[in-house]
Amino acid sequence: MDLVDRVSSGQGDFVLFAITPPRQSTPADRLPQIAQATIDRLTHLDLDGLVLYDIDDESSRNPVERPFPFSPTVDPSEYRAHHLQPWRTPVIVYRAVGKYRREDLRTWISEQDPLHTLTVLVGAASSGAAPAVSLAGAQAMRAELNPDLLLGGVAIPERHSRRENEHLRLIAKQQAGCRFFVTQVVYDLNAAKNLVSDYRYECESRGLNTVPIVFTFAACGSMKALAFLRWLGVDVPRWIENDLRHATNPLATSLEQAATAAVELIDYCRRLGVPFGLNVESVSIRREEIEASVELAAQLGAHLRK
Amino acid sequence: MDLVDRVSSGQGDFVLFAITPPRQSTPADRLPQIAQATIDRLTHLDLDGLVLYDIDDESSRNPVERPFPFSPTVDPSEYRAHHLQPWRTPVIVYRAVGKYRREDLRTWISEQDPLHTLTVLVGAASSGAAPAVSLAGAQAMRAELNPDLLLGGVAIPERHSRRENEHLRLIAKQQAGCRFFVTQVVYDLNAAKNLVSDYRYECESRGLNTVPIVFTFAACGSMKALAFLRWLGVDVPRWIENDLRHATNPLATSLEQAATAAVELIDYCRRLGVPFGLNVESVSIRREEIEASVELAAQLGAHLRK
Repeated sequence: MDLVDRVSSGQGDFVLFAITPPRQSTPADRLPQIAQATIDRLTHLDLDGLVLYDIDDESSRNPVERPFPFSPTVDPSEYRAHHLQPWRTPVIVYRAVGKYRREDLRTWISEQDPLHTLTVLVGAASSGAAPAVSLAGAQAMRAELNPDLLLGGVAIPERHSRRENEHLRLIAKQQAGCRFFVTQVVYDLNAAKNLVSDYRYECESRGLNTVPIVFTFAACGSMKALAFLRWLGVDVPRWIENDLRHATNPLATSLEQAATAAVELIDYCRRLGVPFGLNVESVSIRREEIEASVELAAQLGAHLRK
Repeated sequence: MDLVDRVSSGQGDFVLFAITPPRQSTPADRLPQIAQATIDRLTHLDLDGLVLYDIDDESSRNPVERPFPFSPTVDPSEYRAHHLQPWRTPVIVYRAVGKYRREDLRTWISEQDPLHTLTVLVGAASSGAAPAVSLAGAQAMRAELNPDLLLGGVAIPERHSRRENEHLRLIAKQQAGCRFFVTQVVYDLNAAKNLVSDYRYECESRGLNTVPIVFTFAACGSMKALAFLRWLGVDVPRWIENDLRHATNPLATSLEQAATAAVELIDYCRRLGVPFGLNVESVSIRREEIEASVELAAQLGAHLRK
């Protein structure tokens, strides 16, 4: 069963790998090489799908200086169309809806082939911004223009820790058409479990089916990458930071931490009967960090299939 | 190596079972039977030691009504002397120092045989109380009167979550003579790991040895017992409460949760090189809850020795 079939039928147990398209400043003749290197790295992994992030300048949501400067990236959909054609499995293309004009978003949604593409629509980062299209508007467009296009939403366990209502937001998104959710990088397992648990029991009490929640993991090899994750709003427990700070090989330590956390969440979701997927990303563009994330995806895929 | 040797040499990997002596209101002729039932239950477990709690009325520290009414219990040391003589391994006897007159505490400390007894001295629950003997005073007594008597202190991961200085308190207690620490029931693994991690790296930076941290677990089969744990200051994550609330067999679910959490902490402490022990208690006096805790201790002992 491929990713589209699984999500359509509410089943989880899939593994994804997420990439951010190259920067717009990348020389055009380098793009095919970069894409080919990505495909070469990932092709042996037996992934169920690829995730293409759509990066927006989120500095409006955090007054603290961004640890890595923002740099606009190539449009994920164009990058895929021009350079990732050899990739064989379905692709989940993110759309930061606040970046687009209404007509462009309508066209893009209409043109997607639901057998090979899924999308995650992401609202504007700051509530202060007034985008041309709201998240609700974009969700309604999909329902109108391309109802078979599988829609996902973001799930933020950290928000659940602070407001205790993220499970209700997920259910509202589900009612707006979402058939799966994707988290940010997960470091705080309690927060993730609290969200899964509250979501599951709320669905049960309303007679709703649970849809797959895709948990994102990453191997993070430096304190700077960790600072960036925190800037993005990820709760990183102190013991994880300590382990990394004192590790002789932080990247290997981080890989082990992430694999352990993923296995624990897998066990938890299975016990609870909530469908789940796993998504692995690389936080930075350092070669070693990318390779460690590829290794993490390999380990998680092997664990899931054993 | 018995418990005294292990703690003396800073080694962990031991399993304890904690009991609260019967209520003072128990008819005197029932005490031998109760003690014998306890010994019968525990004797096949191959425990490294027994823990005898000394219960104080802690209602001064929490304005919320106590879920179970306070009821004074038989003095742990007398209960041991009169009814637990057949027990073969060392016993850790708690002393809530605020309950005792100075002379009585001096006498008790002087009389203990350090080959068979260890003690955990506990300060008064509320900072408002003015006890006859302070915790520091009691610690000094032990150093003066019976320096070979192994001294333990309480470790509270929840306090670390709020104040981030519990590792420094542990080190101060260590400098006052503590050779091991015992936690309350652990439900919040992140909090426990954060404390272990900060403690370990702080010891390293000061050139101190780490001493065994004993983590307490319990099988908790009812929402009322859970409410009592919360009243005592234990942080219980929402997912754990949800799992218990919706479980067809809450006690079996709780046992599984506790075993999973213990195994995770064991792995973590081993990875970090921090010596640890495990302590199992029963939160209530319901027979099924006691039996589930005995089963938990059996599982943890088997896991530790495999």
